Amino acid sequence: MQTKPLAHFSNKLNYLFARYDVSSFIFIRMSQHTFRPVASLRGKSVEKAAQFNRTDIDDLCNLATEMKSFVESGGVIDALRGKVMTPLFFENSSRTYSSFCGAMLKLGGGVVSLNLETSSIAKGETLSDTIRTMTSYSDVLVLRHPQQEALETAVKASPVPVMNGGNGTGEHPTQGLLDILTIRTELGTVDGLVVALVGDLKNGRTVHSLSKLLVNNFDIAELILVAPDVVQMPQEVLDAFQKPVKITRAAALSEDLVRRVDVLYTTRLQKERFSSAEDANALALFDTVKADLRINADTLKWAKEKMIVMHPLPRVDELCTSVDDDPRAAYFRQMRFGLFMRMAILFSVFSA
Amino acid sequence: MQTKPLAHFSNKLNYLFARYDVSSFIFIRMSQHTFRPVASLRGKSVEKAAQFNRTDIDDLCNLATEMKSFVESGGVIDALRGKVMTPLFFENSSRTYSSFCGAMLKLGGGVVSLNLETSSIAKGETLSDTIRTMTSYSDVLVLRHPQQEALETAVKASPVPVMNGGNGTGEHPTQGLLDILTIRTELGTVDGLVVALVGDLKNGRTVHSLSKLLVNNFDIAELILVAPDVVQMPQEVLDAFQKPVKITRAAALSEDLVRRVDVLYTTRLQKERFSSAEDANALALFDTVKADLRINADTLKWAKEKMIVMHPLPRVDELCTSVDDDPRAAYFRQMRFGLFMRMAILFSVFSA
Amino acid sequence: MQTKPLAHFSNKLNYLFARYDVSSFIFIRMSQHTFRPVASLRGKSVEKAAQFNRTDIDDLCNLATEMKSFVESGGVIDALRGKVMTPLFFENSSRTYSSFCGAMLKLGGGVVSLNLETSSIAKGETLSDTIRTMTSYSDVLVLRHPQQEALETAVKASPVPVMNGGNGTGEHPTQGLLDILTIRTELGTVDGLVVALVGDLKNGRTVHSLSKLLVNNFDIAELILVAPDVVQMPQEVLDAFQKPVKITRAAALSEDLVRRVDVLYTTRLQKERFSSAEDANALALFDTVKADLRINADTLKWAKEKMIVMHPLPRVDELCTSVDDDPRAAYFRQMRFGLFMRMAILFSVFSA
Repeated sequence: MQTKPLAHFSNKLNYLFARYDVSSFIFIRMSQHTFRPVASLRGKSVEKAAQFNRTDIDDLCNLATEMKSFVESGGVIDALRGKVMTPLFFENSSRTYSSFCGAMLKLGGGVVSLNLETSSIAKGETLSDTIRTMTSYSDVLVLRHPQQEALETAVKASPVPVMNGGNGTGEHPTQGLLDILTIRTELGTVDGLVVALVGDLKNGRTVHSLSKLLVNNFDIAELILVAPDVVQMPQEVLDAFQKPVKITRAAALSEDLVRRVDVLYTTRLQKERFSSAEDANALALFDTVKADLRINADTLKWAKEKMIVMHPLPRVDELCTSVDDDPRAAYFRQMRFGLFMRMAILFSVFSA
Repeated sequence: MQTKPLAHFSNKLNYLFARYDVSSFIFIRMSQHTFRPVASLRGKSVEKAAQFNRTDIDDLCNLATEMKSFVESGGVIDALRGKVMTPLFFENSSRTYSSFCGAMLKLGGGVVSLNLETSSIAKGETLSDTIRTMTSYSDVLVLRHPQQEALETAVKASPVPVMNGGNGTGEHPTQGLLDILTIRTELGTVDGLVVALVGDLKNGRTVHSLSKLLVNNFDIAELILVAPDVVQMPQEVLDAFQKPVKITRAAALSEDLVRRVDVLYTTRLQKERFSSAEDANALALFDTVKADLRINADTLKWAKEKMIVMHPLPRVDELCTSVDDDPRAAYFRQMRFGLFMRMAILFSVFSA
Repeated sequence: MQTKPLAHFSNKLNYLFARYDVSSFIFIRMSQHTFRPVASLRGKSVEKAAQFNRTDIDDLCNLATEMKSFVESGGVIDALRGKVMTPLFFENSSRTYSSFCGAMLKLGGGVVSLNLETSSIAKGETLSDTIRTMTSYSDVLVLRHPQQEALETAVKASPVPVMNGGNGTGEHPTQGLLDILTIRTELGTVDGLVVALVGDLKNGRTVHSLSKLLVNNFDIAELILVAPDVVQMPQEVLDAFQKPVKITRAAALSEDLVRRVDVLYTTRLQKERFSSAEDANALALFDTVKADLRINADTLKWAKEKMIVMHPLPRVDELCTSVDDDPRAAYFRQMRFGLFMRMAILFSVFSA
């Protein structure tokens, strides 16, 4: 093991690789490992799926995988010491919030935990002013906002990178990236797979980002969109596909369909989305739809031995706990991949 | 500039004890001290008093004491760098929450501050799913929950250690441990003491954990349970005592009783606990009981010169501020011991 | 136990200036720079403007400026490792809260994010008890409270320094200091300037602290108080001026006035302040007043080329966004100065 830079500690460019601990019982291993950031992310906001090409995605997945193995074998990556992240969550979230926080903390950075409800944002400040405020004190923002346009406003007002943590029914690009990482790691590849997206494809920003990433950067064999018409995939998402892809639509999960899929990606169905739909019969359809799309242990009896079930979570009853112990249930591991994908992203955004 | 140590930095087993600072005015002393973790806690959840034996308790107290003196003389223990703790508090708390956070931060770790009210837990997620989510991003959880059974659910679902920060009327083991540390430090020993527990002994999980720790691991001279029948110590706590101990019951604080005690441990009386009690006259009793159990400066006139008054706090009016300046009032110091006991616990849980 | 490196590290005075990084791509530069804390702040609470003399202010401004340039060129100041700050905010705030948190984190310290609404403070604990609790677990507090007297209570109960983050209509000293830093940096000096304070001067604690700092420590040419009588500067603030100063009062922003000012410092007007005023016609006046005091792009047509517009923010409509792109609009830069002033203060408070 080489620690060459040490000899140069006292000169002006003394970039030191430090390993140290504080007792003889607890050892902290500082990275002597060289992590390679994804250069195209340097200083950039993460706004949408379209900003990533295949090389970016592969590099992010490799970096996240390396970080996972390094951290899980006890390594400490202290790269973002002195950097501060502020999550601005104008909408309920626990997964995106906690995994961004965990990622920043595991990289040695700090997090400002602002409670939006007790902040002066209640005093009627504009989003632009709030963004300018928070970026005066922090080096990166994570924004989750119920309105799609909020992201653009924030990016425009911010002198520092903004991570899109979900903008209305728009996008959720870091979720899309962690989904790709999950598929790649669990099944060894993304190319050639049959992917079924199930549930509310209209309002689910997760499946918007994921489907764009999948179609535009990989050669998937087939994309199956399983949803009733009222919440089918919006045309503007399909229009964003830059390559031909075999698309199949279905209203329910059938045996035939389940037999074919490599990735069964389901999302939450929300009653309120049905009632606000244009179709007057939509609400009445809700219970039927729920039954048609539900995944349980029986559903998996039809499925291949090597396939995975994914869900961005939280789930209600569209995904039964009877599936949890099946090795094909990848949704808990999927969350864990989220931590490392977000570490890879933050690390790259801050790279010099 | 001093760079002498650097030549020795490249040793392959360079677990380095580092002392450094960042200016000539503010000195950060990194631990050159060897802290010895309590090995039986390594990787374990902290669930209940019964998991600790006398050796564990002594070792934890010694470790906490050492850490206190090290930190208070300006030392920095940076042992948990890169580790992340998530407190999941489903119930009001400021002491347990803040002292666990303070302990983790003082050990160099990070804390994810999740606001449960604005998180997706509001979307109806099960506790198991929430636990699996949070443990995807963090290395240890602290759980406070109004329901006793929640702890077991959490421990079962969690791949990482769970610290019980109070489960309903069940236990509050870290509080019990800090109470032991307080008694030991303030009075030099626990063995041979007369300990009075005062107040709501039925619902107070603090006194459940403490009395089990006291009786099963120490030779106390007498345990006095001062409470009206309606909120007396539950039989299942008494059944958990594994050694004979002299137990006395009293309904009020008398001069005779106060003269004898070495430790006068009082807890909060809550009106709502009385109204929901089975005894129909309970609520009417509340005001009488309050007067019978109240501790003020006059109460202490009867007490020994060397004894202590303890309270897990917050207090309402069962413990008068007239006692605050008495040197026997140990309850503010007791909170401080909580910080160091939780540091000792977290340090041990993470030891390799 | 491996302690080989220690022999060389254990020199009693080996305060080492460490520079290190964790990869060859992300470089963390630890301070080799010597920052000089403001000695008079060592271990002290920051309560009010009157505790600072000209030397303190100059030293704080110099320190903050140095830190700003160090941090903005990529330096990491890791001086407060192992120190813990708890912000206790009993009132809405995002700026003061976030900038104190950002400052602490950028100095390497930790922050306990307590949600006051879900804490046991809701159980009716006294402020003194809350302060004693929080200071058991932390090394510095930041208090924002709607009542002016709360600060004194907190300082009395606290064994650690308390930073006043705004006490009712009392003071906001760190805001006053960052305002001085802004003026000094933007205009090169504070002495000799014409300063106009505009808006609710009665209830605005910001302008109370700032005007005292300005008059008592600098030789400003003129202080113009622009406000209707109902919210004019309180007599006790004027009584606190220890030097003669030319004071002019105005009820509206006139061309003549704007032409003369070097600093146009405006604050939020709140309708509710008018309705609770003694003057029965106050509320009716509100709309007139708002128009009289509003600053927009047209207002600045009259102003000098070298002057600045300041605002503690958040703003409502007393300061139009049409001013934002004018180089004289200093209010966004003012927030950024707040981060570094609070870093300078915290660094000095913890200096040994």
